[in-house]
Amino acid sequence: MKNVIIAQSGGPTSAINASLAGVISGVRKSGKFGKIYGSLHGVTGVLEEKFIDVTDMSDFTQLISTPAMYLGSCRYKLTDPMKDPSDYNKLFEVFNKLDIEAFFYIGGNDSMDTAAKLSEYGRILGSDISFIGVPKTIDNDLVLTDHTPGYGSAAKYIATSMLEIAHDTYIYGIPCVTIVEIMGRDAGWLTAAAALARNEYNETPQLIYLPEVPFSIEKFIEDVKEKLKAHNNLVVAVSEGIRDENGIYITSTAAAADKFGHAQLSGAGKALEIIVKKEIGVKCRSVEMNILQRCAAHVASSTDLKESFELGEAAAALAADGKTGLMPAIIRESDSPYTYHIDAVDTTQVANKESNVPVEWITPEGNDVTDDLITYIKPLIQGEAFPTYKNGLPDYMNISHLI
Amino acid sequence: MKNVIIAQSGGPTSAINASLAGVISGVRKSGKFGKIYGSLHGVTGVLEEKFIDVTDMSDFTQLISTPAMYLGSCRYKLTDPMKDPSDYNKLFEVFNKLDIEAFFYIGGNDSMDTAAKLSEYGRILGSDISFIGVPKTIDNDLVLTDHTPGYGSAAKYIATSMLEIAHDTYIYGIPCVTIVEIMGRDAGWLTAAAALARNEYNETPQLIYLPEVPFSIEKFIEDVKEKLKAHNNLVVAVSEGIRDENGIYITSTAAAADKFGHAQLSGAGKALEIIVKKEIGVKCRSVEMNILQRCAAHVASSTDLKESFELGEAAAALAADGKTGLMPAIIRESDSPYTYHIDAVDTTQVANKESNVPVEWITPEGNDVTDDLITYIKPLIQGEAFPTYKNGLPDYMNISHLI
Repeated sequence: MKNVIIAQSGGPTSAINASLAGVISGVRKSGKFGKIYGSLHGVTGVLEEKFIDVTDMSDFTQLISTPAMYLGSCRYKLTDPMKDPSDYNKLFEVFNKLDIEAFFYIGGNDSMDTAAKLSEYGRILGSDISFIGVPKTIDNDLVLTDHTPGYGSAAKYIATSMLEIAHDTYIYGIPCVTIVEIMGRDAGWLTAAAALARNEYNETPQLIYLPEVPFSIEKFIEDVKEKLKAHNNLVVAVSEGIRDENGIYITSTAAAADKFGHAQLSGAGKALEIIVKKEIGVKCRSVEMNILQRCAAHVASSTDLKESFELGEAAAALAADGKTGLMPAIIRESDSPYTYHIDAVDTTQVANKESNVPVEWITPEGNDVTDDLITYIKPLIQGEAFPTYKNGLPDYMNISHLI
Repeated sequence: MKNVIIAQSGGPTSAINASLAGVISGVRKSGKFGKIYGSLHGVTGVLEEKFIDVTDMSDFTQLISTPAMYLGSCRYKLTDPMKDPSDYNKLFEVFNKLDIEAFFYIGGNDSMDTAAKLSEYGRILGSDISFIGVPKTIDNDLVLTDHTPGYGSAAKYIATSMLEIAHDTYIYGIPCVTIVEIMGRDAGWLTAAAALARNEYNETPQLIYLPEVPFSIEKFIEDVKEKLKAHNNLVVAVSEGIRDENGIYITSTAAAADKFGHAQLSGAGKALEIIVKKEIGVKCRSVEMNILQRCAAHVASSTDLKESFELGEAAAALAADGKTGLMPAIIRESDSPYTYHIDAVDTTQVANKESNVPVEWITPEGNDVTDDLITYIKPLIQGEAFPTYKNGLPDYMNISHLI
C-alpha cells in the first residue's frame, strides 16, 4: 500500500488539529494507505524532508483539543511552475521517494492555491497522487463552504469575552465607552460574533463596525453620542480592518494621525478611543482582543471541533476514491435545527478568493449586524469540548518536535 | 433580629461574587440576623439608599461563577470625618433607619480603609455595628493575608493564555519575539503567574520582568539577544508597571518616546516591541493581555472560588460574634499538600498598604522568577469550576439591576 502526507499551513486555529485527527482517522479507516507522514511546517517540511510518523496515532482526544498546528505551519508560497519548476520537481521527487499516493493540505485560501497547483502539475506529469485541501481559518472567508473550521471556536471565544467585558463594564454607574478591536482585516465575520454576547440583560455591544462598509468618523461620533443618551455603558465592537470611503485604514487617517503621529503604532480601537476622548470627552478605553482569538482552545466550540474532524475524514475519503484537486465543504441545510452535509468543491474555485459578510446582513446605518447574521453564527458556537486539565492548566499535546 | 448590608468595591475579579455568596451564606447560617441588603455600587449605594434584597438567595452556584460585581462597584473615597463628617452622618443615619447590625465591604486596600474608618467612627459614636472587610483583588497586593481572592483565577487565566500563546508561537520555525504585557502597576504577582505556563515541552516565557526591580533597556536588549541564541521563539512576560532606575515608566523613557512621540499611547509591551525591532531587527509582536485578566470567569480557579466563599462565611462569623474592624485572612500552613486556615486581621493594618513580590523571589539577573515563587502560586490555580453554559455561552447571573 502507498503512503500519505498531511501538512498544515497558514494561521493557527483551535480546530486545525481536529482536522488533522480527522484525516488520520479517515486514512486509517479507508484501509487503502500505509504510512501517514506528518510534514513539519507545511509544504516546506516536504521540501526539506522533515517528517514525523503519525501512522499509529489512535487516541485523538488530546490532539483534537490542542490549539495551533501540531505539525507547525509555514507562509511559503510555491514558485510559479511555468517560470521556475524547481519547487515542484523537488516535491514530486520526495512524493515518489516516499511512495506517496495522497497529500492533504489543511489551510486557508493560500493552501487551497497550493493544493490546486500541485493537483494541476500532477495531471501534467500523469501522476496519480491525490491532492486534497482541508479548509480552516478563523476568518471564515473561504468561498463555497458555509463556514470554515476554526471560525466557530474563535466566535465562541469572542462572544464569551464580550459577555465578560459587559460584566466588567456594568459595575460602575458612570458613562463609559469601551472599544473592542477584533481580528479580521477584510472580512467582518469575527467582529460580527460579538453580537452573540447580547442576552436578556446585556445590550452590549451596542455598536458594531465591520470592514465591509466604509467607516465614517463623523458618523461614528454621532452614533456614540446618540447611544450614550440611552446607555451609561457603551461597548463598541470594531474590526481591525475598518476603512474610510477612500479605503484608508482608520489607523492612518488624518484625524487619528495628528493625534499619535506614528500610524503603525495603533490599531483601529486605539484610534477610536482617542477620537471619543477628544470629540465627546467621555471616559473611554480600548481593548485589543489578542491572539487568543485564534488559539483559545480552552473555550473551543464542540460543534466546530466535530465538523473539523468530519471534514478531515471526508478529505481522506476523497483521496481513497482517487479524487484530486478537491476540498470538502460544509453545505448548510437548515439553521434551526442546525443541519448540514459535506460536499466536495474544486480547490481552484476556492484558491485566492475571499468571502465577506453580505451587505444585507449589515444594518442600513452600517453600525450593527442583522438578526440573519446572528442566526447564521449561532449554531457554530454551540457545545463545549474543553480540554482536560493537569496541574490547573490545559493538558495539551507535547509539541517538542516543533521546538 | 437586626439586619446587614453587603457591598462590593474596587476593580472586578472572577471571585468577588463567591465572597458575596459566602457572606450571604454565613449570615443565614448564623441565625443572628434578619434582612440582607445588597448595596448597589459600593458604599455609594448606602449614601443614596440604593439596595436590593438578597435575603432569600440560597442557590449560589450561578452567583459564584459570575465575574465582576453582582452588586456593582464604586471608586468613592469617604471624606475625612475630622474635616467633613457628612458622609459618616449620612451612612449611620441609613444604618439606623434600616436597623443594621453589620456592614460587610468586599474589596481591596481602599475598601479596608473604608471599613477601618467606619469601625473607628462607630466606636466614637458608641455604635454596636460590626464593620467587616472581605479581601479581594487580582493584584494580590494586600498585606497580612497569604494571597487575595481573585488572584488565583487571574493567575489561572494568565497561565492558560501564556500556554496557548506558546502553542501559537511555536508553529513557525523562524526567529520571533513575542512580548506579553500583563497587569500589575506596582506588584508583579500577576506577571509572575506567566511562569506557570512552562511545562515539559514549553520553556516560554523565557524572560519575565516585574516592577519590583528597576528595568534597564540595555540589559533587556542583551537578555533578548542572548536567549535568541538558544530559542527561535522567545516569549517575554512583562508587567505594565516596569520602571527604570529613576522610577520612570518604560512607556515614557526617551528611548521609547522618540519612537512614538505620544507616551500615553503605548504601554510597556509596545515600547519593548519597538526596541526589539529597532535594536535587534528580529520579527517581534506585542500582546496586551486585556481586561479578561480580571473577569474571565470561564476559566476560574476552583481553589480561588472556594476560598473566596469561605472568607465570606468567615466574615459573617466575625460579625455574628460582634467583632468589628476585622478582615478574614488566609494563613498558609504548607505548600504541598497545600493547606491553610483562616484568621482575622485588623483592617487598619491592611488599609492603604501594599504587598509586593519579595526581591528574593526574583532571580539575581532580574529577568525571571525563582522556583519558590512558582511553588507559592501553583496551589492557587488548581481546580476547574467552570460556569454552566446556555446557547454556547456562560450562563451568568442577570445583572439588569445595575443597568
